[in-house]
Amino acid sequence: MAYSKKDLISTKDLTTEDIYQILNLAKDYKNLNLQNEKKSPLLKGVTVVNSFFENSTRTRTSFEIAAKRLSSDAINFTASNSSTNKGETLIDTIKNIESMQTDIFIMRHSSSGAAQFVASRTPSCVINAGDGCNEHPTQALLDLFTIHEKFGSFNNLTVSIIGDIAHSRVARSNIYAMQTLGIKVKLFGPPQMMQYTKVFGCEICKDMDEAVSGSDAIIMLRIQLERSDDETPFPSIREYCRYFGLSKTRMQKAKENVIILHPGPINRGVELNSDVADDPRISTILSQVENGVAVRMAILDIVYKNLKGL
Amino acid sequence: MAYSKKDLISTKDLTTEDIYQILNLAKDYKNLNLQNEKKSPLLKGVTVVNSFFENSTRTRTSFEIAAKRLSSDAINFTASNSSTNKGETLIDTIKNIESMQTDIFIMRHSSSGAAQFVASRTPSCVINAGDGCNEHPTQALLDLFTIHEKFGSFNNLTVSIIGDIAHSRVARSNIYAMQTLGIKVKLFGPPQMMQYTKVFGCEICKDMDEAVSGSDAIIMLRIQLERSDDETPFPSIREYCRYFGLSKTRMQKAKENVIILHPGPINRGVELNSDVADDPRISTILSQVENGVAVRMAILDIVYKNLKGL
Amino acid sequence: MAYSKKDLISTKDLTTEDIYQILNLAKDYKNLNLQNEKKSPLLKGVTVVNSFFENSTRTRTSFEIAAKRLSSDAINFTASNSSTNKGETLIDTIKNIESMQTDIFIMRHSSSGAAQFVASRTPSCVINAGDGCNEHPTQALLDLFTIHEKFGSFNNLTVSIIGDIAHSRVARSNIYAMQTLGIKVKLFGPPQMMQYTKVFGCEICKDMDEAVSGSDAIIMLRIQLERSDDETPFPSIREYCRYFGLSKTRMQKAKENVIILHPGPINRGVELNSDVADDPRISTILSQVENGVAVRMAILDIVYKNLKGL
Repeated sequence: MAYSKKDLISTKDLTTEDIYQILNLAKDYKNLNLQNEKKSPLLKGVTVVNSFFENSTRTRTSFEIAAKRLSSDAINFTASNSSTNKGETLIDTIKNIESMQTDIFIMRHSSSGAAQFVASRTPSCVINAGDGCNEHPTQALLDLFTIHEKFGSFNNLTVSIIGDIAHSRVARSNIYAMQTLGIKVKLFGPPQMMQYTKVFGCEICKDMDEAVSGSDAIIMLRIQLERSDDETPFPSIREYCRYFGLSKTRMQKAKENVIILHPGPINRGVELNSDVADDPRISTILSQVENGVAVRMAILDIVYKNLKGL
Repeated sequence: MAYSKKDLISTKDLTTEDIYQILNLAKDYKNLNLQNEKKSPLLKGVTVVNSFFENSTRTRTSFEIAAKRLSSDAINFTASNSSTNKGETLIDTIKNIESMQTDIFIMRHSSSGAAQFVASRTPSCVINAGDGCNEHPTQALLDLFTIHEKFGSFNNLTVSIIGDIAHSRVARSNIYAMQTLGIKVKLFGPPQMMQYTKVFGCEICKDMDEAVSGSDAIIMLRIQLERSDDETPFPSIREYCRYFGLSKTRMQKAKENVIILHPGPINRGVELNSDVADDPRISTILSQVENGVAVRMAILDIVYKNLKGL
Repeated sequence: MAYSKKDLISTKDLTTEDIYQILNLAKDYKNLNLQNEKKSPLLKGVTVVNSFFENSTRTRTSFEIAAKRLSSDAINFTASNSSTNKGETLIDTIKNIESMQTDIFIMRHSSSGAAQFVASRTPSCVINAGDGCNEHPTQALLDLFTIHEKFGSFNNLTVSIIGDIAHSRVARSNIYAMQTLGIKVKLFGPPQMMQYTKVFGCEICKDMDEAVSGSDAIIMLRIQLERSDDETPFPSIREYCRYFGLSKTRMQKAKENVIILHPGPINRGVELNSDVADDPRISTILSQVENGVAVRMAILDIVYKNLKGL
């Protein structure tokens, strides 16, 4: 049994076998990347459209590199100077680009559900590269790749996710996939960033000590105040750092071999202190980025083959 | 006799034979695109510069895909952060880029005549991708491709063009080419958008019923109020929709097998109602976009071979 | 003895032999470009990141064309919509991109020393494409290529550099390289643009006549008032033109076979009159641009081989 969809929209759609399929293929691509055999002819002639209706240099670059290493024609399409500004609907824009016989949309959008909305209306592949506060499945898969690489398995693992859980698509995608894999997930964050998070059925921690202790991996989220509905300035940056930020001092109750993940870009001295971020024994932030290209190559490979029935 | 110029600036320069040459070659490229053999080595090593001094994601993407499918090195050059902002003249900018041994300029500019001005001063190919209110020849050729695909010939056809004729480069390029081919052209639009259009020698209609009836194809133009010299808000959007927009109700006097074209992006509910735009029996809007890539591949092919004497 | 560094940051690091190595290889690439064999497979699979933290269409395009002609995967990364705007440090941004197994950074930054700062912290190659008022080594090398192409050697040459010496990275990189090669350098410019330039040990001229006479090549700098610390409007554009601009009239004391260089884009009628700029017997401005691609191909070739120990 293998993943058979033409799209990757949500980690909810992934079985344990699907996740292992993606991670195993990503491992192959990572090895090729490391052996300086970065270029594969797999997607030669295939047109991949990086359609970012919300800015993201980092994720766009990761996907663009993945698409080019597979020899596809990668087209960048950004909303800032696109016809959506001329009043065109999202679906009209997508239908237009798709009419140019493009094959794969990598899509980021500020609205939750946008990727699914498009995927169900286009014969092309759609890979969700972040839709509002909803999901960011490739980020979760690269987090899982990084955790698996460290621990060799997902058995008996506990993962803490700390920060703005309520507005984090990274948190959602990780929670769904980790629950599928049987990983125990603990959540912690400021009250207004924890609203409606009980629905996930995860353990909610009462302070950083509890959030940190006993976990094998800690995912620190970037604070993105721009996504908050609440305009009151609580917590302030100083408060955030003190009560919700991670530093070496804060890690005294953590396991010896814990690893720290962060989707980047990090706010040094806010959610993450440099003494943690820059310690290669515990911080896996740069490994995550490295693994991201391999994971995205694997996903491009799988969804395109599914589309073509290969 | 074949088209022998290194540039494509105006459909005025095209004979009937030239048009058929382009459309026939475009048909070959469309078939290759459909057979999933999208990649041709024809322009390998050739440098194509997408020089858009005016924003256009859609047209730029179409040309970029066409250029990449022909294996050329496609460079995007947009004016927003270019040296023209530092006070450099247009010709100095072009001469500079051309000195990098580039081969083909695809050029969009807000000034009428800019493409011709450049073409006569550079040894490179220049393809006009829209110059002010003047011409947009590749759009006209993809419209013709779409019409020919539907009717199998250009004999005894009548085409209506409806909207802001006075400021439309799409209208101009279509009128010139259609008159060459012997197609009867009817025009209709609000008074201020019909100024100086008698010069084309086409039939001017007095209302939508007259514009619609008897035509085999209707080209609905996008209203682009930003191009109007007149700042008075007439017609308002509601008036435009009522008196100059196309809906199923408005099409009662139209021929049974009429097709509707639009250069996109469409303003739904303004110049075109969704009941028309989304009816695949009559709307050819997405076919136009699809045909656009094939037509542009054909034009790149022809002008480059002309440049090199192949 | 050949240039052995993985980076090119400053012309101070180049010996006479290094400069000849680069120019000789550039000559080979220029010949291939002219023979319409522009595409080399040398960097296939190599990822080149055009990281421009300061806008520059011209230099970015030159490097992008060079990188693509060598068959690398060229990624454009511009600061305007990058995560540095989200508060990320420069090094974090670079470390992130580099984790995607990229190989070469081409880097422009508004801060002097930024390229060196990055180069000493990354295992990737770094090519300085302009750092603040400090250096722009590839511009100096293409100037040298152009001068050598004209005179066949660097022996007994005198070069004048005229304009805003104090804020010019082009001037600095040229001065260092020319002093290494034994070329005599004369400097001239308005007083406030000559501050702290005695440190270079070049001859300082007292007026245009002195600056122009006896030189084999004159490098006219672009005035970039945005880089000046001084907000007083002296010289005004009219004054600049009169006392520091170059015209045919001003060239009466110049050598018969003098050549005029300019890094572009030129301000016609300010630092350079059109009668000089457009005279192909003396102006080498477009040759400089042409040579720039070849020089950059040579540098990409050399630093990548140095990185890989080839």
